Amino acid sequence: MKIGDQHHRSIELAENGWGVRVIDQRKLPWHLVFVTLGSCNETAQAIREMWVRGAPLIGAVAAYGFCLALREDASDQSIERAYAALLSTRPTAINLKWSLDRMLAAVASLPPRDRIKAAYARAADLCDEDVALCQAIGKHGLGLLYTAANAKPNQPINILTHCNAGWLATVDYGTALAPIYLAHDTGIAVHVWVDETRPRNQGASLTAWELEQHGVPHTIITDNAGGFLMQKGKVDLCIVGTDRVTSNGDVCNKIGTYLKALAAHDNGVPFYIALPYSTFDPNLSNGNAIPIEERTANEVTQITGKLPDGRIETVTLTNSPAANPAFDVTPARLITAFITEHGVLSPKEMLRRAA
Amino acid sequence: MKIGDQHHRSIELAENGWGVRVIDQRKLPWHLVFVTLGSCNETAQAIREMWVRGAPLIGAVAAYGFCLALREDASDQSIERAYAALLSTRPTAINLKWSLDRMLAAVASLPPRDRIKAAYARAADLCDEDVALCQAIGKHGLGLLYTAANAKPNQPINILTHCNAGWLATVDYGTALAPIYLAHDTGIAVHVWVDETRPRNQGASLTAWELEQHGVPHTIITDNAGGFLMQKGKVDLCIVGTDRVTSNGDVCNKIGTYLKALAAHDNGVPFYIALPYSTFDPNLSNGNAIPIEERTANEVTQITGKLPDGRIETVTLTNSPAANPAFDVTPARLITAFITEHGVLSPKEMLRRAA
Repeated sequence: MKIGDQHHRSIELAENGWGVRVIDQRKLPWHLVFVTLGSCNETAQAIREMWVRGAPLIGAVAAYGFCLALREDASDQSIERAYAALLSTRPTAINLKWSLDRMLAAVASLPPRDRIKAAYARAADLCDEDVALCQAIGKHGLGLLYTAANAKPNQPINILTHCNAGWLATVDYGTALAPIYLAHDTGIAVHVWVDETRPRNQGASLTAWELEQHGVPHTIITDNAGGFLMQKGKVDLCIVGTDRVTSNGDVCNKIGTYLKALAAHDNGVPFYIALPYSTFDPNLSNGNAIPIEERTANEVTQITGKLPDGRIETVTLTNSPAANPAFDVTPARLITAFITEHGVLSPKEMLRRAA
Repeated sequence: MKIGDQHHRSIELAENGWGVRVIDQRKLPWHLVFVTLGSCNETAQAIREMWVRGAPLIGAVAAYGFCLALREDASDQSIERAYAALLSTRPTAINLKWSLDRMLAAVASLPPRDRIKAAYARAADLCDEDVALCQAIGKHGLGLLYTAANAKPNQPINILTHCNAGWLATVDYGTALAPIYLAHDTGIAVHVWVDETRPRNQGASLTAWELEQHGVPHTIITDNAGGFLMQKGKVDLCIVGTDRVTSNGDVCNKIGTYLKALAAHDNGVPFYIALPYSTFDPNLSNGNAIPIEERTANEVTQITGKLPDGRIETVTLTNSPAANPAFDVTPARLITAFITEHGVLSPKEMLRRAA
């Protein structure tokens, strides 16, 4: 990821050699604040309170949370405690469990004194793997954008995305945005419709900021507007990320994704899901079984922005009661294809490969 | 409409006998501010800047704007000027033209000295008619809610609505909310899912406030959440208003309505449109022909709320570019029925009756 001219990852080992440095994403788009997490508790807090978010990044931060727990106490009981504490931070994204299972496997059979080093090595590998996966997703998705661009000479292709599935949601490059960055870098004219993604506005605050850093043309729209734009022929394709795909190909992603998939289907607009296989959950037969996180109503009734005097402040929009389900499930039938590290696959192909 | 114990209309003749008193709806839900509009220009400004909104109320305010223009100058040229100025305030809702055409017809053939009195009489009639239409819509819609309640004994029926089509959008009672108020008053247990309705949050700021004044249980949700709630069986039916219905039954309404209609269709949830026949536009063959208002990007990138110290302030959410189409079109095929002053009609019945 490029911030100004500098290359960063969304998560890096801190200068002290054992903590992890992440971006406090709650502060964007106004302030780019790096924070160092120095304990398992701090990583759990950072995930729970969404300093970091995005299924792949949550997995990476949890991996280092596991390392930090071992640094404090490398016993079997400590491993169990850390696994449970980190797993409970957020219920919906399966990458969290995927990552913790790998960390556990890397250290469980070792004597406690060898565990810390092995854990840090495994966490670093997981991060490198995530980068490679996102690069592969980008490369495979690029073909789709290339084809779309060829069908529309001398005009930018319009891509709609929901929430943030860019490099802020992964270790680097992103899932849904990886093909878009690559297309832009190779000279394909792209324009991104960015759903603001209420209630936490990850689209308006994170995706738009990322795209701006990279120089990709984009326009923020309300979550209500995408269907209209599709009706008017102003969306060539949709690409979103996902927090969990079940064994029948149902896709859980940020609340509102389902509505865009319906609109895309109704208007003949291709709807793509970009994901690494670590987001696949073979243990659930369909999307109904996915635990959907219900977050605090405050996220709906309050919002943070910049006052005319430059201060960042939270305002209350209403005192009425509110509900805040954080994810929904898009049935497999509405999905055109999955953009994975192994290629662009139909739902059936993806499931066959995962089996 | 009830505010506390007092009955009001959304528009009333001012105490001076010639201005009109309306609620400055931009100030809700925090402050109930009545303003008196004393000239045609002021009524045009109030419509354009959305101090008042809602297709039927826009029509009523424009009618009095026409009266106020005649008070200043009752000549033919003045009539023409007022008609054009008021018609240009907002492009999408057809009720505006419907109302102005009736005002014009009431005075055009009269000598200028008789026009003012005739205009005020016609405007008062239009308002009374709107009240009667909304009462009839409420009565006909009540039957639907009664049936839904009978199918679900001992549980509240859950109704989803988008934007505001309550008494704040009409002279009194509302369109979509009229049956809900009546059901509540007759002892049917109702609960309303209120779409916040970005960007201007008419759901969170107006509908929730109205429902609270009337004591109707309700919960605000983001515009992203309705599809998920329908998937989970938590929505029994949807009722929304409309700004224009074309001769094939396509429904133009606040941006995002189309997405909810798609979700309702996908989940077998009935989707009703409540409207007086004045919202019907027989001159347009389908929804593609409706002019869709594109409003300022500031409505997307800024939002107003209450600071911790109690001050009402506008904060900026992002400096990124934004687009703000204000309406979309729901195809007739997604609509279960129209709740009109003449009864609950299928799209075909409604069109036959209008022809």
